[in-house]
Amino acid sequence: MFQTFDVKSDADAGPRRVADLRVWLTENGLDGFLVPRSDEHQGEYVAARSERLRWLTGFTGSAGAALIMRERALIFVDGRYQLQVRSEVDMRLFSVESLIDNPPAAWISENLGKGARIGFDPWLHTVGDVKALREACEKVGATLVALERNPIDILWTNQPSPPLAPVAIHPNALAGQLAKDKLVQLASSITLDGATHAVITDPSSIAWAFNIRGNDVPHTPLALGFAILAAEGLHRLFMDKRKLGRETEAYLTQLADLHAPSELDDALVAIAKAGGRVALDPALAAERLRMVVEDNGGTVVSATDPARLPRATKNNAELAGARSAHRRDAVAVIKLLAWLDQQPAGSLDEISVVTRLEKSRASVGEEAQMPLRDVSFDTIAGAGPNGAIMHYRVSQQTNRKIEDGTLFLLDSGAQYQDGTTDITRTMAVGRPSDEMRQRFTMVLKGLIAISTLRFPAGTRGMDIDAFARVAHWKSGCDFAHGTGHGVGSYLSVHEGPQRIAKTGTEKLLEGMILSNEPGYYKEGEYGIRLENLIVVTPAELIGGGDIAMHRFETLTLVPIDRRLIVTVLINEEERAWLNDYHARVADEITPMLGGAELAWLEAATAPL
Amino acid sequence: MFQTFDVKSDADAGPRRVADLRVWLTENGLDGFLVPRSDEHQGEYVAARSERLRWLTGFTGSAGAALIMRERALIFVDGRYQLQVRSEVDMRLFSVESLIDNPPAAWISENLGKGARIGFDPWLHTVGDVKALREACEKVGATLVALERNPIDILWTNQPSPPLAPVAIHPNALAGQLAKDKLVQLASSITLDGATHAVITDPSSIAWAFNIRGNDVPHTPLALGFAILAAEGLHRLFMDKRKLGRETEAYLTQLADLHAPSELDDALVAIAKAGGRVALDPALAAERLRMVVEDNGGTVVSATDPARLPRATKNNAELAGARSAHRRDAVAVIKLLAWLDQQPAGSLDEISVVTRLEKSRASVGEEAQMPLRDVSFDTIAGAGPNGAIMHYRVSQQTNRKIEDGTLFLLDSGAQYQDGTTDITRTMAVGRPSDEMRQRFTMVLKGLIAISTLRFPAGTRGMDIDAFARVAHWKSGCDFAHGTGHGVGSYLSVHEGPQRIAKTGTEKLLEGMILSNEPGYYKEGEYGIRLENLIVVTPAELIGGGDIAMHRFETLTLVPIDRRLIVTVLINEEERAWLNDYHARVADEITPMLGGAELAWLEAATAPL
Repeated sequence: MFQTFDVKSDADAGPRRVADLRVWLTENGLDGFLVPRSDEHQGEYVAARSERLRWLTGFTGSAGAALIMRERALIFVDGRYQLQVRSEVDMRLFSVESLIDNPPAAWISENLGKGARIGFDPWLHTVGDVKALREACEKVGATLVALERNPIDILWTNQPSPPLAPVAIHPNALAGQLAKDKLVQLASSITLDGATHAVITDPSSIAWAFNIRGNDVPHTPLALGFAILAAEGLHRLFMDKRKLGRETEAYLTQLADLHAPSELDDALVAIAKAGGRVALDPALAAERLRMVVEDNGGTVVSATDPARLPRATKNNAELAGARSAHRRDAVAVIKLLAWLDQQPAGSLDEISVVTRLEKSRASVGEEAQMPLRDVSFDTIAGAGPNGAIMHYRVSQQTNRKIEDGTLFLLDSGAQYQDGTTDITRTMAVGRPSDEMRQRFTMVLKGLIAISTLRFPAGTRGMDIDAFARVAHWKSGCDFAHGTGHGVGSYLSVHEGPQRIAKTGTEKLLEGMILSNEPGYYKEGEYGIRLENLIVVTPAELIGGGDIAMHRFETLTLVPIDRRLIVTVLINEEERAWLNDYHARVADEITPMLGGAELAWLEAATAPL
Repeated sequence: MFQTFDVKSDADAGPRRVADLRVWLTENGLDGFLVPRSDEHQGEYVAARSERLRWLTGFTGSAGAALIMRERALIFVDGRYQLQVRSEVDMRLFSVESLIDNPPAAWISENLGKGARIGFDPWLHTVGDVKALREACEKVGATLVALERNPIDILWTNQPSPPLAPVAIHPNALAGQLAKDKLVQLASSITLDGATHAVITDPSSIAWAFNIRGNDVPHTPLALGFAILAAEGLHRLFMDKRKLGRETEAYLTQLADLHAPSELDDALVAIAKAGGRVALDPALAAERLRMVVEDNGGTVVSATDPARLPRATKNNAELAGARSAHRRDAVAVIKLLAWLDQQPAGSLDEISVVTRLEKSRASVGEEAQMPLRDVSFDTIAGAGPNGAIMHYRVSQQTNRKIEDGTLFLLDSGAQYQDGTTDITRTMAVGRPSDEMRQRFTMVLKGLIAISTLRFPAGTRGMDIDAFARVAHWKSGCDFAHGTGHGVGSYLSVHEGPQRIAKTGTEKLLEGMILSNEPGYYKEGEYGIRLENLIVVTPAELIGGGDIAMHRFETLTLVPIDRRLIVTVLINEEERAWLNDYHARVADEITPMLGGAELAWLEAATAPL
């Protein structure tokens, strides 16, 4: 199993650890210390040794920060974690603040006293974050102090070592472009940005640029490391050689000079002293890197990670891989759904479904000789009211029976070598209420509105997000998350910069893979979400039209529960899309099924 | 007539004036001078004396800038003026740059040589503009020089004097809130912004805050002037007393200390020297104001004009006024349309329609004892291919016959004391082509999509702009302007900050009036636009829904040409909206018409 169901939090240790940290602060002349959830690479998943926020506070969410002061302690989390944080963190010690409305910088500028000294680890905060924090401190006459060593690393006696998972070459048949060609392309971006070098800190960009995959963090095939790319083509890769087999090392040596991660500082100092202009992405690069460059006479050029857009716009090989991965994944999910429908109501719980689904993926992957490498995130299996918790992770403590007359929300994904999947289906268990069916139909209308959309080149994600909501709006409802996130190619299941959301400022370009996942959540009662992955297709001229338009191709191939659709609420165009979609699912998946599973598929994809 | 049809440009004088300016530059040790179209108040319309860009170059558009260098001269205009600028400006002397893609700051940072000295008039550029210009100059080692006197004002021997139109009190029955209460509200905004004072430079904000109206610029009832509002309530108004009658002066004296505009500098110096914190809107306030404050020891607080949002969210009295104004305006437009339909094809030209429409408004206004005070902008009357020119203004030179088998686009508006109107209708002349009718129907679908929308509190204009386009997108078309702009209450017909557009970052709040004006333009052939004004209504709970929703009330009450609708392309919901709308138009307008005009209205509003 690539996921566990144990309770991860360890709140009980919090008070002692906070007390130890306070002693350290006093000894070091500091009034406070900032503990972000991030590691040096700002990814969603971090290695065990970087779970500093969890170690100190017990909080297990994927975003957050703590500020430990001598007299008080604060934990900052976003809306989805407001309940969870109170069950995981010692509330006698911590008060909770909103990471969105009142993040550390805002809190500091409102609350900190003159002369206060707040420490931070410049490896764990981005250039952009530190700029905001420093401005906040200056406003109130406080000082932000960059620390040479993170006190948590001093106090955490059994802190795990950095991960050393083996690195594999990602075959060109799947990558679709040789690493050396990608590096030439990146070098010219660096020149365009007016820089001589760029530090690549996002392991996802390193994986893409060098065509390698690793296993250093959960659920995403990343090899942690840094790269310094040079406009004139002499690249350096900073990665622990113990992770590289002989073949991988030989391969990488052709692309870059290999160095230990500890040599990054010296390399940057040398570049800076030679007057280098070093591009750093202010939203990704550690403040520490800025300090090294500027303290040694170099110039920092603020520029987005040059791999971001090339990585987001998938080439034909990557798209072919994605289609294969989705067909395979659909077989695994359909087998699970067919089995689910045969179980007596009340006989299953969330964990039993998650376990069986992962086994189904593993077995289908093995048969296809494209094994399941990991789940792309901890499966969200929400029975009844648990479905309304948007980022629910089932544990032994929360595990719930799947009962008659409820909805069951199942959001899961896989990592195969040819692609990353992410799919949500919501199923009827017995006879759900009329309200549940009405709301499900609104969610489906949102999914279809995005699926059938045509849009001109230059359209941004934010321009189309509302199409997933307008059916809800007519009923006086909405959902409190974006419509879609970007998805990588055997990389992060949450990949930027593409997204369909109110904050989706990036243009939707040919080849971008995104999720399309409208939902509806009624707290304490039920949750609904439908999620397909979609890809932006080349612009095509519509007969009689003036300008070429993009549309979306749907990658996900799993039936949508017909029992939950209120037929009179969908129009002819929507019905046509659904029937076409189900016909396509039947077409593509039938050859891979037999027996009862095939019979289930036929019924599930029958025209409405 | 509030509008003329003469050719306004005077390109022939350009070369001599540019030559004179170059002599002046040389004498004053400058390499260039920036000439914006703006005046000190950054409004859309400027007084005759402020038409410096037109005087120098001949360009008559409402946005643009020139940069006169010793060896070359550039004129910067946006997409809508690319053709016009070439007919108005001497192309042997000027080269054209894009005001959007390559504005002066960008051009400077790419082209200016080291050591170049570029002069500018700090009264005519905002704090934000100058920041960008200064950064651009610094990048290339050039210097931006703020001039004490604008050289155009020195060279322009018969430059008109500042306007002195009489200022009137705007009655409380129409304003709905006493000026003294508005000023209390503004003072507390200033405190919230952390300032002691705010300089109000937008005459629209002054008109709103003091409940006054003037006539200093075309088509907008503004009295040019400045105000310094104080957090602790001792306000100052800087306005030429010759514009104030005894009654107005007595009224204003109760609200603020009255000063001549020339005393603004001294007042600001005194505030700055006393350590004042002066709020300036970086998008509105002249750089000159920042200089005075900062050069005298004061602090500039960057904050949006505190009157912006209160002015944009109309109260009940303003909305009642808007409804009256729109009913009255509808009668005038309907009379014109009824008359238009009776004229033999080919017998009319654009000017004859514009003239008759203005007379119709004047006569309906007189009858209602609410006279037409002005047109709210120069009427856009585009016959055939002229309809495709988005900001067309008819002149004796461009005047075109309205011919059989074409479309006629008519975009016009009025200023009455109770409200500002802005309406576009596109009419069939004879038998338009099937393509024209198909495109018209797509535009109508866009109008209806916005008209019928429900949306949650917090929705921004940018979130809903695409609903006006999606029907077009399905046909492979689009239109190259925003869907809607804000409209004032007997103030600017283009009012911020509210807008429905890709750039509409502002939330749509209860009481905001906006236009809803999708279009379609086929260059050289025809143009289509439909425009209603709409107002954001209070949020209401929909039966069965979770969250309260806003919707739009449509203010405009003029039939939409049924002859141009392809009935099979509209769905039941759209048909229902159109029939309801026409029934409402008939209901409200019938009592004010008789005879042939009433018969026309009955036919035009018959159900589809």
